Amino acid sequence: MSVPAIDRDTLDGLLKRRFFFAPAFDIYGGVSGLYDYGPPGCALQANVIDVWRKHFVLEEDMLEVDCTMLTPYEVLKTSGHVDKFADWMCRDPATGEIFRVDHLVEEVLESRLKGDKEARGETAEPFAGAEEKKRKKKVKEIKAVKLDDAVVAEYEAILAKIDGYSGPELGSLMQKYNIVNPATGGPLSEPLEFNLMFETAIGPSGQLKGYLRPETAQGQFLNFNKLLESNNTKMPFASASIGKSFRNEISPRSGLLRVREFLMAEIEHFVDPRDKSHPRFPDVANTKLRLLSKGTQHEGRTEVTEITIGEAVQTGLVDNETLGYFLARIYMFLIKVGVDHNRLRFRQHMSNEMAHYAADCWDAELQTSYGWIECVGCADRSAYDLTVHSNRTNEKLVVRQTLAEPLTVEAFEVELDKKKFGPKFKKDGKKIEQFLTSRTQCELEDLANELSEKLKVTVDVEGVGASVEIEKDIISIEKKTRQEHIREYTPNVIEPSFGIGRILYSLIEHNFWIRPESDQRAVLSFPPVIAPTKVLLVPLSNNEAFEPMINELSRLLRRAGIPAKVDDSSATIGRRYARNDELGTPFGVTVDFQSVQDRTVTLRERDSTKQVRGTVEEVIGAVRRMVGQDAVSWEEGTKGLASFEAASE
Amino acid sequence: MSVPAIDRDTLDGLLKRRFFFAPAFDIYGGVSGLYDYGPPGCALQANVIDVWRKHFVLEEDMLEVDCTMLTPYEVLKTSGHVDKFADWMCRDPATGEIFRVDHLVEEVLESRLKGDKEARGETAEPFAGAEEKKRKKKVKEIKAVKLDDAVVAEYEAILAKIDGYSGPELGSLMQKYNIVNPATGGPLSEPLEFNLMFETAIGPSGQLKGYLRPETAQGQFLNFNKLLESNNTKMPFASASIGKSFRNEISPRSGLLRVREFLMAEIEHFVDPRDKSHPRFPDVANTKLRLLSKGTQHEGRTEVTEITIGEAVQTGLVDNETLGYFLARIYMFLIKVGVDHNRLRFRQHMSNEMAHYAADCWDAELQTSYGWIECVGCADRSAYDLTVHSNRTNEKLVVRQTLAEPLTVEAFEVELDKKKFGPKFKKDGKKIEQFLTSRTQCELEDLANELSEKLKVTVDVEGVGASVEIEKDIISIEKKTRQEHIREYTPNVIEPSFGIGRILYSLIEHNFWIRPESDQRAVLSFPPVIAPTKVLLVPLSNNEAFEPMINELSRLLRRAGIPAKVDDSSATIGRRYARNDELGTPFGVTVDFQSVQDRTVTLRERDSTKQVRGTVEEVIGAVRRMVGQDAVSWEEGTKGLASFEAASE
Repeated sequence: MSVPAIDRDTLDGLLKRRFFFAPAFDIYGGVSGLYDYGPPGCALQANVIDVWRKHFVLEEDMLEVDCTMLTPYEVLKTSGHVDKFADWMCRDPATGEIFRVDHLVEEVLESRLKGDKEARGETAEPFAGAEEKKRKKKVKEIKAVKLDDAVVAEYEAILAKIDGYSGPELGSLMQKYNIVNPATGGPLSEPLEFNLMFETAIGPSGQLKGYLRPETAQGQFLNFNKLLESNNTKMPFASASIGKSFRNEISPRSGLLRVREFLMAEIEHFVDPRDKSHPRFPDVANTKLRLLSKGTQHEGRTEVTEITIGEAVQTGLVDNETLGYFLARIYMFLIKVGVDHNRLRFRQHMSNEMAHYAADCWDAELQTSYGWIECVGCADRSAYDLTVHSNRTNEKLVVRQTLAEPLTVEAFEVELDKKKFGPKFKKDGKKIEQFLTSRTQCELEDLANELSEKLKVTVDVEGVGASVEIEKDIISIEKKTRQEHIREYTPNVIEPSFGIGRILYSLIEHNFWIRPESDQRAVLSFPPVIAPTKVLLVPLSNNEAFEPMINELSRLLRRAGIPAKVDDSSATIGRRYARNDELGTPFGVTVDFQSVQDRTVTLRERDSTKQVRGTVEEVIGAVRRMVGQDAVSWEEGTKGLASFEAASE
Repeated sequence: MSVPAIDRDTLDGLLKRRFFFAPAFDIYGGVSGLYDYGPPGCALQANVIDVWRKHFVLEEDMLEVDCTMLTPYEVLKTSGHVDKFADWMCRDPATGEIFRVDHLVEEVLESRLKGDKEARGETAEPFAGAEEKKRKKKVKEIKAVKLDDAVVAEYEAILAKIDGYSGPELGSLMQKYNIVNPATGGPLSEPLEFNLMFETAIGPSGQLKGYLRPETAQGQFLNFNKLLESNNTKMPFASASIGKSFRNEISPRSGLLRVREFLMAEIEHFVDPRDKSHPRFPDVANTKLRLLSKGTQHEGRTEVTEITIGEAVQTGLVDNETLGYFLARIYMFLIKVGVDHNRLRFRQHMSNEMAHYAADCWDAELQTSYGWIECVGCADRSAYDLTVHSNRTNEKLVVRQTLAEPLTVEAFEVELDKKKFGPKFKKDGKKIEQFLTSRTQCELEDLANELSEKLKVTVDVEGVGASVEIEKDIISIEKKTRQEHIREYTPNVIEPSFGIGRILYSLIEHNFWIRPESDQRAVLSFPPVIAPTKVLLVPLSNNEAFEPMINELSRLLRRAGIPAKVDDSSATIGRRYARNDELGTPFGVTVDFQSVQDRTVTLRERDSTKQVRGTVEEVIGAVRRMVGQDAVSWEEGTKGLASFEAASE
């Protein structure tokens, strides 16, 4: 399926002119990767969030939390973000320019491949991967140079794995293929790791290092025990959070698609690792999704398979019911806010591109003029986060399940003769004991063997010493059988994570079109539920006679909770409607001379420009039915109202 | 009016146990001044925000924007925050402890005054100012030491002006009155200025210094031109923003009342400085407010005057209609979300405590067990912000008003002979020209005189030189008369600014009480519109027969957009209701054996524990009428339903 042609210049002009969003600090020259939302963008965002909250949080009884963005070093050190949440950059020592290395290598090799195709007289295929325009800008001109067939194959192999290379590997590729600053030809530095978190210091001493969170998830994990308690210790359950996160992108471009501060909505669904079934799965099993599996991608292909999620789970393409359930729910949400089914696919991550914490991951990708954009990630983070935080803090983050039948368990257990142990190790005792109790069963088996052979064990305890000896009279390590009535386990986490800004931008593209019959007027066909304004009120002219009725309509709509705007400017009615088509306002109500006499008004539908006529009450009733969460169609909503022939717009 | 006694330990226990909020990063030992909101706190916050948005943004057609939190250095340098947004701190070199100097001086002097009173055998008055408990903690024991009458008078004079001292002045006070670390008696360092903004670096070069915004206002000012355009260049208008801001408090305490990351809702109402009337003022003129003027405070008194806002504006107590309008609207909002009228006052800022940008300011203060807390500020920021940003960026941030009658204006004007000026000053020309065109009328008059006397002017132009000479043949400065058809002005800004966390905490206190008749059960009597959950669904027992009806009720309530929870635990009905009284759930619906037969259920009201009985449809209808923005009372909502005598809870 090819990308429907979007006239991006026209769209960008519209978005800027109507202040959907604009570069932040514009009058100061702007800061790349930072955007402000103006009134229509802000309303669109609030409406999408409102639908999200109703679709997920209320519908599924999730526990919504609001955690701080400021996060101390220790937490993100433990989660792995301090060490692993980084991109590789290189610098041009001559110009001071900084490049993100993986993007640079990708762009240069792709442009060489295109140049090769040109030299061979083939038309370069439109690139289906991502963010084509951006690439075009960086590598300014594509030189028609033919490459050896072997080189072409090498390049293609590299590009297929581009997300999986380490920094040093990228450095070798740069050397091997002579990758330099595309603009100047100047040499570049070795790749350096650049952590993407914004750093700051908390408190007046300057000694508590902190970061702005790169995701909202960590706060939810840290509160796991309180959340489980809030849910009356019932499993499974989900928490949810809506809030800003921050990533210090190396060179952000592509408008709202790659920014440094962004709104996320994240769900952490905690589930028993032994049972990932979902009670509501049957409700969604028939939902058809367009899936792109990792298998297909490994074969170098990108066709989607359109099957029901029931089938996908049954055949193992999607790992389990819970993951499948959320993919279907994500799909329904995206469709509800106006995403085009044919420009939405779920792509499975390949193993070399998975985040450091993920066990499996599917992305909902939306097709835009920048390519396919990851807008929702749905990852199985396994027990990773709860485990690392628990280990670091010695705070149990587990579920205790009362077993119907007690379980007989055989396990090695350590026993210490406290009377001897204490006096011998004094202040080190606690560390040694902690070391011993945190050993795995395998390690304990080894220690038990060592103890029976050497009559002592020698262990390496951090903070105490490399050869701490404990004699047989102090320690016993034996396999014991016991009855367990409680099963204690660390839940797994399925995490649907939504990039709200990316969804907003994509759905704007999906709903943007140019009215062919008129003088090329642009329309944003937002579903009423997310449209920034629902109704435009237009008096026929600025005759004072219309004012009371316009005021009454405003008041009635406000009372019904329906956002409306009045346009009483002197522009023609057609012109006023055209302006609001650009804002995506789905309905227009005109007050004319007849209205003043008989309280009837006309109601116009944005996409079809159809009009009907009815009393004020009838028309407000119709609007009411057509704008909410369970909105009905125009045909359904205006049933019984007389159609009305308007003068041509 | 005395503070109603709040058992804060019981309340704190409740808030923690039900996870309204909790210290963030608790399992890592916490970070002071950072809190996470759990499910009920988060829902309460979302509901308060929803009411806020409807009460202000929708009702008044405000332009809501969402601007970035990351803010570059230049913007906050211009706004004055880099230089002036600071508190004074001092350090104990022995313990490393850091104190906020003004708080420390205040606490020590107050405790000495209390000690004096004790020594004189007088009872110390309960301190009416703020945050008493906190002070008590810091200055551990109050020694009964009698002071000279003269010293008492000095201390009292200092305390009255405590918010107005500079750092060096505070340092002198510390020396003069021997103020040391109250805990150890150890000496403290000189006061140092500590900027309260969190600093970070934007982008990979580390060279673009930035801060986390300390308020949401700046983003609104920077977008002024776009906003005016969005409003079809009509004046006055208001923008609004809801979002997090950050202040690196020196030693945050008092729970949610002084935190480092907090949600704000801010309105910037742009108004013609010559006309601060408000068209809707008559609608609110009869609203009675409790006002504490600066005059009263300067006399050292704190009684409020309860008068209508109409009277307050008429007598000049409140400066203008727009300011008065917003005070009344703020009042209505606070009452709507559950604030107690008698624990709410509007206090005018004294001149020595005004923020650096403010021309006049009234705070809505809420009385809590910590004292009177500033929860909403309503400041007239004059034209300060637009002017400084405009000067810094050379971007006009003005309104151009077409005058009905052209205005005749006499003014000094500078004219340059470009043919000579350009070649003479070359690259400096632009700076010199900018310098000349940005002179005031007075300065131009002086320059005109200088020019006619000396046949040249000598000016000091930053970046060019201290004595730039311009000869008479190049420059002319003359008073000219011209007709103006357009009036250009920089609007003034009235800014109502809401600290949502402080409002939440205060209204929790205002709605907290202990049921006297029962076994001391705690209740949070939130108005239904902000209650986290509106309805609790309770089956009489866990008999399976009740399940279908409970599910049906859940579904019907969900469809009506009414948040509900089921409690099917084995606790008694009374116990289950008691748990939900703690969460502030206003209504309870019980399904019993009769329900299964005739589809009637009982409906319980939280505060009175009254019950009525009706069909499922009747009861849902009643709930619907009682939970929205225009909710009706219990009596009104349940009219026609039979009262029901429940077994004692």
